[in-house]
Amino acid sequence: MRCGRAPRPAPAALRSRTWQCCTHTPGGAAKEYSAVDRLVAVHGIGLVEADTPIVYADDPGLLRGDGVFEAWLLAAGQPVLLPAHLDRLHRSALSLELALPELDALRTFVLDVAAAWPRDVEAVQRLVCTRGRVGTGRPTIFTTVEPVPHWTSINRQRGLRLVTGTVGFPVQERATAPWLLGGVKSLSYAVHTASQRWAANRGAQEMLWLSSDGYALECPSFNLVWIRSSTMFTVPSWSGIIAGTTAGALITQAPALGLASDEALVTPEELARADGVWLTGSLSGILAATELDGRPLTRSPLLAEARRLIGYPGS
Amino acid sequence: MRCGRAPRPAPAALRSRTWQCCTHTPGGAAKEYSAVDRLVAVHGIGLVEADTPIVYADDPGLLRGDGVFEAWLLAAGQPVLLPAHLDRLHRSALSLELALPELDALRTFVLDVAAAWPRDVEAVQRLVCTRGRVGTGRPTIFTTVEPVPHWTSINRQRGLRLVTGTVGFPVQERATAPWLLGGVKSLSYAVHTASQRWAANRGAQEMLWLSSDGYALECPSFNLVWIRSSTMFTVPSWSGIIAGTTAGALITQAPALGLASDEALVTPEELARADGVWLTGSLSGILAATELDGRPLTRSPLLAEARRLIGYPGS
Repeated sequence: MRCGRAPRPAPAALRSRTWQCCTHTPGGAAKEYSAVDRLVAVHGIGLVEADTPIVYADDPGLLRGDGVFEAWLLAAGQPVLLPAHLDRLHRSALSLELALPELDALRTFVLDVAAAWPRDVEAVQRLVCTRGRVGTGRPTIFTTVEPVPHWTSINRQRGLRLVTGTVGFPVQERATAPWLLGGVKSLSYAVHTASQRWAANRGAQEMLWLSSDGYALECPSFNLVWIRSSTMFTVPSWSGIIAGTTAGALITQAPALGLASDEALVTPEELARADGVWLTGSLSGILAATELDGRPLTRSPLLAEARRLIGYPGS
Repeated sequence: MRCGRAPRPAPAALRSRTWQCCTHTPGGAAKEYSAVDRLVAVHGIGLVEADTPIVYADDPGLLRGDGVFEAWLLAAGQPVLLPAHLDRLHRSALSLELALPELDALRTFVLDVAAAWPRDVEAVQRLVCTRGRVGTGRPTIFTTVEPVPHWTSINRQRGLRLVTGTVGFPVQERATAPWLLGGVKSLSYAVHTASQRWAANRGAQEMLWLSSDGYALECPSFNLVWIRSSTMFTVPSWSGIIAGTTAGALITQAPALGLASDEALVTPEELARADGVWLTGSLSGILAATELDGRPLTRSPLLAEARRLIGYPGS
């Protein structure tokens, strides 16, 4: 561990606690929380006490959601698809004209912190980069590690019910208006959170965002993958969706599942007739979409094999 | 000052410094910065040292822009239009289902901090409320006070050049999709910031957002007011703009300027033929829009009187 000033937490202490998280729980109930069950490290400082403030009142990441982030699974202590996440972080930062350290330095930073986490606790590591305090010209960069939320395994087992909602744009709108930040994984996720709350208030687990001209795009936390006529489809990235790291890994495994792969625009009506609709995410891997606006969706028998191929557990 | 634990800064020390700010400068150059020239106070704690972190790594306001804010002018130590700002904060929080303390408690909190600021330094006070740390159920609330940026007086003198850019939506889209957070002053302002950067890269000071069906809506930091045929117009709030406190105060003064007032949708072509185009904001008051996509706009002779009527300086 190169980056530490604060004492390294004892893995035994981490393991001795039960972790629960209150965000995005299917039922929405608040759960226990203990800040000791996390690692927090600030770039340029190293590990800090998890239960201390680290961000200043004038940070544009806080005041204007002006920054980028990535989150990935730590499986047996190893970050899953880290190069793809760092590449996407780099592209997001370019879109925001946000100068970051070299990716090698960021990789070293997050790997050092990951190494301090107990290997037998499945975890989510998050890397956050803001534009940094006014006048400093230096981004604020920190990483956190905490156990994967308990609802992840529930979602892997049960799948997700979806309701549709418009994202407001026609599907081609963001391609020609870069200030709308299509494809950018920024810290400005209030609409994402509001969409998920809207879905939860209607008994669903996620909103499936539609373009205003009626095409399914993505969910606030997941990419959309569907199977139809022996082909695995994903949504083209020119539509302004966040290009998925897990979806990207999955699509390369299509041949191993006996499928061709392609990009396409799809309507909810077409999804209702698909041979399987999946949601992919960095933490969850692949989830089955089970309902769309109350209509049951076909379950694909390929799900378990697809999960195995990209290295994610089933429940 | 009821809310203090940390020592109250000496007004003399505040006055002795030259303040400059690097955000949204017309030229974009980084300027000097000293955190001592600010007040920072956390609700429930009181004044804290301005140069210490106050927000935790797991705060959704930081991680997802999941919170609301307001900012207002402190003129001679008095918050300008504070009731309107607190009302709007309350409406924004309702939209996000974010439970805040009673407005009376928030008012007391910000007034106590404002009272610690030297009356002879024109300042901006900001109130920020996030959903609060995971599992606590308590919002994170803080306020800052700092001198008004130096570009404010430049803008008041010179006016602003505008370039148009789409906000992606048809003008009616957000009225029926509450999860898109039309009218909500949230912390998710990455698109606002990107739009302003886009404008600055083209030699303008602001982007004038257009609906995808061609109506002028607002700027990322300003509301739009225009004069045509003895009527002062503003954009209807059902379009999803942030309802302006300064625009609201100005419209009530229309009769004193010899004008009727009305709400309307307007195209850039109609603005180019208007008898005056103004931008209103809490810090700047009323600014003249001088150019729209390179075309000069008519300057209204009523600007100085309008500023006087709502109590804002001219430069």
